[in-house]
Amino acid sequence: MALASLSSFLMRFMNTRSGLHFYFDFISPYGYFAALRIDDLASAFGRTVEWHPMLLGVSVMKVMGLKPLLDTPLKGPYTRNDVMRYARLHGIKLGREPGVAPMSPLACGRTLAWAKRHHPQHAKQLAREMLNAYWLLGVDLSSPSAIAGLALPGSLSAAELTQALQDEEAAKLLREEVQHSINAGVFGSPTVVVDGELFWGIDKFDQIQRWLETGGW
Amino acid sequence: MALASLSSFLMRFMNTRSGLHFYFDFISPYGYFAALRIDDLASAFGRTVEWHPMLLGVSVMKVMGLKPLLDTPLKGPYTRNDVMRYARLHGIKLGREPGVAPMSPLACGRTLAWAKRHHPQHAKQLAREMLNAYWLLGVDLSSPSAIAGLALPGSLSAAELTQALQDEEAAKLLREEVQHSINAGVFGSPTVVVDGELFWGIDKFDQIQRWLETGGW
Repeated sequence: MALASLSSFLMRFMNTRSGLHFYFDFISPYGYFAALRIDDLASAFGRTVEWHPMLLGVSVMKVMGLKPLLDTPLKGPYTRNDVMRYARLHGIKLGREPGVAPMSPLACGRTLAWAKRHHPQHAKQLAREMLNAYWLLGVDLSSPSAIAGLALPGSLSAAELTQALQDEEAAKLLREEVQHSINAGVFGSPTVVVDGELFWGIDKFDQIQRWLETGGW
Repeated sequence: MALASLSSFLMRFMNTRSGLHFYFDFISPYGYFAALRIDDLASAFGRTVEWHPMLLGVSVMKVMGLKPLLDTPLKGPYTRNDVMRYARLHGIKLGREPGVAPMSPLACGRTLAWAKRHHPQHAKQLAREMLNAYWLLGVDLSSPSAIAGLALPGSLSAAELTQALQDEEAAKLLREEVQHSINAGVFGSPTVVVDGELFWGIDKFDQIQRWLETGGW
């Protein structure tokens, strides 16, 4: 086997083993839908997934200079219908209407960014608790106390989490995640990065699956 | 059978027989991709398709107040890659790069709007000729003479088409189509309307197929 072929083989092998990156905003309904599927999809192909909080308010409004999706003429009504249609198709119950009185996603984003650093084995479970509380149960999680009141995974205590959300570190870690998402070219929720390829939107899951099956095209 | 059930049955039956509406902008690569699939998909379920020219410059920029997709930070580079990735996956050759020196779509849009009125049996074929010339062959079709130089279907002559594009009627018919698209809530290319449901984006074709198969959910 020539060196170039060997190198290509190893690259492909390493690529097919590399983890996926999943970017989402807690207040994005499509991000919630993706969170319900991404780990099952990846693990079916022996892949792991790292979850990244991002903020549409930064990427869409500040970097791209666009209005929020649900406040945009034509696109707002379309999106509301599309979200409910997706939920019906996949049997997902929603405890709130998309775009109606969205909370600030800062506390949730900080919680995930902080948990990834200090409780990495529980970070994803904590993110799922927050997503379910917000989207399924309709709980507002804009305050640290609301998040601390959830069923916390592992040895994580409400007191530790409440303290963490008062410290500057959690805010700094989220800012780093958001900057990381923008550097990666991420602008929408959900975005999944597979082998360096960005796939934006819940409608891209079939293409993601195909990419994982075939190793790309 | 109770009257309500009968009525429901008839409505469903009528719905499943109603035609689809396909909205696209000639300079949208995703619109081109959709044009290559939509009639085959619909006819597999015994449905017809009416093609509608729309103008992203009106719906996106004027009505929604957004920048052109490919000029938007983050979204521009993503879209270029996504278009090429879709083309590779589906074996579609592109004779031009998306977003590079786009033509004005006015002449093409007017041609289709005019042909629907005066040569309805050839309108779709003419639209396909224009799409292929622009996307596959890289021909600029911003001038009436460029369009008149294409292989025209049926008895349509270059002289008749050139004259039509100089008349006010063609411009008026396109304005009506564009207003119709906005009234229908259409804001992106492609958009397919099935039984009153809007599906935006080439990534929605799987959902459209499912809708056609199941009669909706």
